[in-house]
Formats: sequence, structure tokens, C-alpha cells
Amino acid sequence: MNSLWIRNVRPMAGAPLDVLVQGGRIAALGPSLQVPPDCAIEEGGGALLLPGLVEGHTHLDKTLWGMDWYRNEVGTRLSDKIDNERAFRHASGHDAAGQSLALAQAFLALGTTRLRTHVDIDTQAGLRHLDGVVCTREAMERLGQQIQIVAFPQSGLLIRPGTAELLDQAMKAGANVLGGLDPCAIDGDPVRSLDVLFGLAERHGCPLDIHLHEPGAMGAFSLDLILDRTQALGMQNKVAISHGFCLGDLAPAERDPLLARMAALGVVLVTTGSASRNVPPLMVCRHAGVTVLGGNDGIRDTWSPYGNPDMLERAMLIGLRYNLRRDDELDVALDCVTHAGARGCGFESYGLVPGDRADLVLVDAQTVAQAIVARPVRKLVVAGGQVVARDGMLN
Amino acid sequence: MNSLWIRNVRPMAGAPLDVLVQGGRIAALGPSLQVPPDCAIEEGGGALLLPGLVEGHTHLDKTLWGMDWYRNEVGTRLSDKIDNERAFRHASGHDAAGQSLALAQAFLALGTTRLRTHVDIDTQAGLRHLDGVVCTREAMERLGQQIQIVAFPQSGLLIRPGTAELLDQAMKAGANVLGGLDPCAIDGDPVRSLDVLFGLAERHGCPLDIHLHEPGAMGAFSLDLILDRTQALGMQNKVAISHGFCLGDLAPAERDPLLARMAALGVVLVTTGSASRNVPPLMVCRHAGVTVLGGNDGIRDTWSPYGNPDMLERAMLIGLRYNLRRDDELDVALDCVTHAGARGCGFESYGLVPGDRADLVLVDAQTVAQAIVARPVRKLVVAGGQVVARDGMLN
Repeated sequence: MNSLWIRNVRPMAGAPLDVLVQGGRIAALGPSLQVPPDCAIEEGGGALLLPGLVEGHTHLDKTLWGMDWYRNEVGTRLSDKIDNERAFRHASGHDAAGQSLALAQAFLALGTTRLRTHVDIDTQAGLRHLDGVVCTREAMERLGQQIQIVAFPQSGLLIRPGTAELLDQAMKAGANVLGGLDPCAIDGDPVRSLDVLFGLAERHGCPLDIHLHEPGAMGAFSLDLILDRTQALGMQNKVAISHGFCLGDLAPAERDPLLARMAALGVVLVTTGSASRNVPPLMVCRHAGVTVLGGNDGIRDTWSPYGNPDMLERAMLIGLRYNLRRDDELDVALDCVTHAGARGCGFESYGLVPGDRADLVLVDAQTVAQAIVARPVRKLVVAGGQVVARDGMLN
Repeated sequence: MNSLWIRNVRPMAGAPLDVLVQGGRIAALGPSLQVPPDCAIEEGGGALLLPGLVEGHTHLDKTLWGMDWYRNEVGTRLSDKIDNERAFRHASGHDAAGQSLALAQAFLALGTTRLRTHVDIDTQAGLRHLDGVVCTREAMERLGQQIQIVAFPQSGLLIRPGTAELLDQAMKAGANVLGGLDPCAIDGDPVRSLDVLFGLAERHGCPLDIHLHEPGAMGAFSLDLILDRTQALGMQNKVAISHGFCLGDLAPAERDPLLARMAALGVVLVTTGSASRNVPPLMVCRHAGVTVLGGNDGIRDTWSPYGNPDMLERAMLIGLRYNLRRDDELDVALDCVTHAGARGCGFESYGLVPGDRADLVLVDAQTVAQAIVARPVRKLVVAGGQVVARDGMLN
């Protein structure tokens, strides 16, 4: 792998310097580097340098990205959306391989070099969607994008007998993380549901990512059960709670002990910054020591027409949701889609210091805050040490 | 003024047809028009045709759009933001004329052909900002963009003696609408504050647009006082409430009688769809008969770094805030920045039927919902019958 010398960039809006990339990693940063011979050169032109962006929660497998417009006439209940989607995907033969690849490429073109995607596993589709996304993961790995696949029981675990067995097969077939879903509201038997789920995780020695939409006291109850099992099984630093809306509903007296337990157990929280629901309080969670990472959730699918693979736009939406206006507050919004994202998903060698994997994004912006609110074109994207995109387009 | 024939467009995603523009107005729409000689021709290529977009609430005069990045270190209280801004504008000599023109042009390039802007009137700046925006209004009128100017006592009315006299002068100097601000929380004397404000409105025979940030019961109290005066002075269909956050706080039993009175008096509501505050319930307000229009509020100013002059993005943010997912729900989000916007501000001859002013926007989108979530480049913008922008750039 050739060396790459990127001239005149401002890491996180700091002083201008050059970056030397060798062997896929950041070899050096500084104002007056020794440049090796035969080194490819990129002129940064004073651009803002960000580490590769991190998508902490999306659903590559179910997107309709680039397809004909899907007219959404879906009901309002969670079960309406779940049933509608499973039926649509079955009837339409929706192609998880091609669709996930198209969206992963669009993510990369916009600077996302690490990505966690959930993939539906259910008794109607079996492992079909997983197989497609595994192909996408391999294809994108060659472009330097790292994808984690969560085997996700979108239609429920206990309520659709046979799902646990499919999740077990999914982990053997290449999923990286085991997913869970509302043990009360969907599965209807929280203790048994979580026992089955944690049993599978223990058997596979894999991390967990549990979608917890349950509100208020119900969500707090489920979260407590999750934390109990995390502790009992020694799964510290291996469990993520996605959404966790209940933490936005609870009074501090009920919320804060849960946050303290999450922090102590290294349980992280994934948020989209939903504008239409109570959300966990970002700054309170961070102050309590809980890592909060950002994600889009589904992008243009049968659930919702919104979304796109721009993690700077997600940072903006998180900023708007949490009323982050000061520049120092917007640094937190960026953290959700960079360092906290990588830490929360367990992506390694992440950052902008020598030795880190060379995942780099250049944008014309004076400050981090400006990059978030203006979401400028990605001038250059480097993934795993290679230039993969210019001006928003993959090479 | 020459005739213009726009071929093959789909008004509001309907069947393809042609549009004939004559004398600045829509002369005809149909599948097989008689085209007059010497008619300029634009090929629509099957694009979605929208009426010119409407910005119902912005602050052209205070934007930092296009300037060096302003580092926001402002405190969290409303008064912090007000005092910081007034001091900054005074010390920096911020140029309301040049800045408002730059932002108004950017609005037009993105398809906004009608726009209501608030302009700060205070005892430190006097009418300086107004004078600048009046120049912008004249310049943009020549490009076919209609601007309404609200003389807005941003720093308070009673609490800064001399402001009422300045508002009086502002109305004589060309403002179209009189603005108000939190009669309890800022002015501290709601009855006298509103009496002075409505007295000025009566003298000038002008509409009112009152920024009501006050929460809960306090906001409901102020709103009641406003509705009393609207009724007593016969100002039906002439009063707008901007923000009206209190309507998002109140229980239905307190809220619904206020909405019924607003509907009966033709008092409209302007929302940004704020993601970080309780907001008036959009669908409930509409079902009660209250016109709800959309606005950006400030765009990249000392209050907030967010925002841009794309009303399709504002429609998206309103859609996200109110969880509008179905295509028929997204039609409502568009309505907030089109027909409801025009109706709420009192812009006349608005729409897509023969006789309406020819304010037209073409985008490549299959549906209205797609136009909102994807915010495609504006292929063509026609304002007052003239082509003013192509592919997002002014001619």
C-alpha cells in the first residue's frame, strides 16, 4: 500500500499541518514532515480534517434508497410498521444485497468509514437479508469501510417461534452482534425473552444491541432486567441500548440510578435525536459517564421516508434536538458520530493520532460547528489509508 | 413582459401538463395548450411543479450568512441572547442591508418567492436595520420576490422607553406589519404592553405578529389578552402568533378553547417545528381551524448557528418534529411552507391556478414527500413570471 501525504489540513479545526499515511494508518501529523519518496500527494487547501464518521445504528438491509418512491400509508402502531414491512419485503422480493450495497456506498462517499447495521432476522425471511448484507460487508471492506452486522429480531423473538434458532444460525453465518427488541412490549415475556437473548449472547461470546422503544416505567423495568443480566454474565462494555426512550420519560430520581448502573457496566446508549419523542437527556447521560452515540436508524424505508447517509446531518439533527447552540456544545454533537460512535460500537484504532487507522474526511469549513450546520461537500474521503471519494462521489 | 411556456411538469405530483405564463401570472395549465408566438420555452422534463415557497418567519436583518464563523458562547437565557446580539450588532457594525440582501437572494435561489421577515427595532439601533431591509425589499421586488417587513421590538417594548415611538416611526418608514414580544416575560406588564402594541396597530391599520415564547399558563394568559384585544378592535384575520410554545404545554382542556378562539378570530400560528421545545400540536391546531405556517426563525445568527434558506428543509424539520411519515401527512408539511404560509401572511394571488402570480419551483422528485425529504436542487425558479434561478443559482 502506497504512502499518502495530505498537505495543509486543520484537524478538528486546529492549526494547519500535514498528515502522512503509511500502511493504511496515520504515520505522522505535523507542520514539517519528512516526506518519503513515491508518496501520493493530496492538497488539503486548509480544509477541516475530521476522523471518518461513524454510523452507530442503521438498517442497511431494508432501505429503499434509490428505488421508486414508496407511498407510505402505514398505521401508527409499532406492530403496524413491523407487519407491513415484513409483508412488503416478502411480496416485493426487496433485494437486501443490492440495497445495502447502494446505501453503504453512499455512506462512504459522505465520509462514513465505520458503520453498525441491524439486519432483520425473522421466520419469514430466514437469513436471506443477512446473506445479502454479508456480501455488502465484504465488498465494502475492500473499500476500507468497516461494517458490523447485528442479527436483529425485528418481528420479535419469543412471539415468533423459531426466531431464536435463526439468531443462533445468524451468529454462525457471520453476524457480529446480537440484537434484541422490546422484551415487554413486543415479546410480552421480558424475563424469558431476555434470558433467551443473553443465553445466545453468552454462547456466542458476542456483544448485544437491544432496541428499547418502551416508554416510561415499562422501559425502566426492561432496562433494569437488562442491566441485571449484563452484570451477572460479566458482559461489561458489551451491551448497547438503542433509543432508550424511557430515559427521556423518567424523573431524575428514577433515571439517574439507571444511568449510574449503565456507566458502571459500560452499557452505551444509541440515539437518533428523535424530534418527535422524549429522548434520553444527552448531556445528563454524558455527565453520568454513559457513552452516547448517534445513528440514523432506518433511511428511506417502509417505516419512514426520512433520512440520508450523511452523518453530519445526523449530528445536526442531534444538535437541534438537544438545543446545542454553542460551539463547545456542537463538539458534543460531532462526538456522537465520531469518537463516541467508535467507542460505543467497539471499532478499534479510531482517531486522528499516529497509529490510528487512516480514516479521514476533509470538508471546507472554518469550524466543527460550521461543518455540522452546513454539511459541506466531502472534498476527500480516505478509508483505511486509501482515497475512496472526492467531492461527494466514490472513485 | 414576455410569455413563458413551461412544458411537461407535474403540478403537486399530478398528471403531466404544460404551463403558460403571461403578464407575470399563470395564464393556463393543461395538456394541450395553444402556445402564443414569441413565447420563451422551458422544458420541464417531467419535474415536480410546486408553487413558490413561503417563508413565514425569519430575521433577514440579523443573519451572519456568508460571514466569517461566529463563535457562539452565549448564555442560555432569552435575555442573554437578546443582550448579546444587540451589543454585537452595535459593536461590529453588522450590515443589515448587505446581509439581508445576501440571505434574501439565497432564499430566492432555493425557490422562496414570498417571505416575512422580522427586523429589530430598538433604542440602540433605531431604524438602522429597518432602513437596510427596506433596501433589500426593493431590490428583491425587482426580482419578483415579495418581502413583508415586521417592525419587531426584539429588546422589549415597555422596558426600553422610546421603543414605542420607534415602532411608530418604523411603520411610517415602510414596515408592513407590527411585531410584539412576550408581554409578561420580557415586558413585565402584559396589559399595558399589549395596550400600547394594539394601540399602535390600530393607528396604523396594520397586521400584528407577536412572538410568544412564554410557556404554559403564562403564555396562555398572554394569549388570552391578545385574543381579547383582537376581538375588541375588530382585528380578525390580522394577527399572527409566532411560536406559541404554550400551546404545546397545555392540557387539551386549557388548550382547545384557545384554539377555538384563534380559529374564530382568524389568528394564525407560525411554527419552526422546534425539535427541542414543546410545540403546538400541528394536526390538532389544523383540525381546530387554525392556520399553521412554517418559518425558519433566525438563520445562522448570534442566537443559533443552524438554519438555511431552504423551505423544503424547513418542511422536513416540521415533518420530523410532528412525526409526519405518511405521504398524506407530508402534504401537510408542504402546506406549511406554501398555501398556509401565503394565507397566514396575507400574500395574495398565490397558488397554481390560472390568475395566480406565476411563482413556480421545479424539482426532480416523484412525489411531494420525496421533494421534502430529499430537498433536491431547484431546477428552475420562476418569480412573478420571470425565470430567476436555475439549478440553485440565481441568474
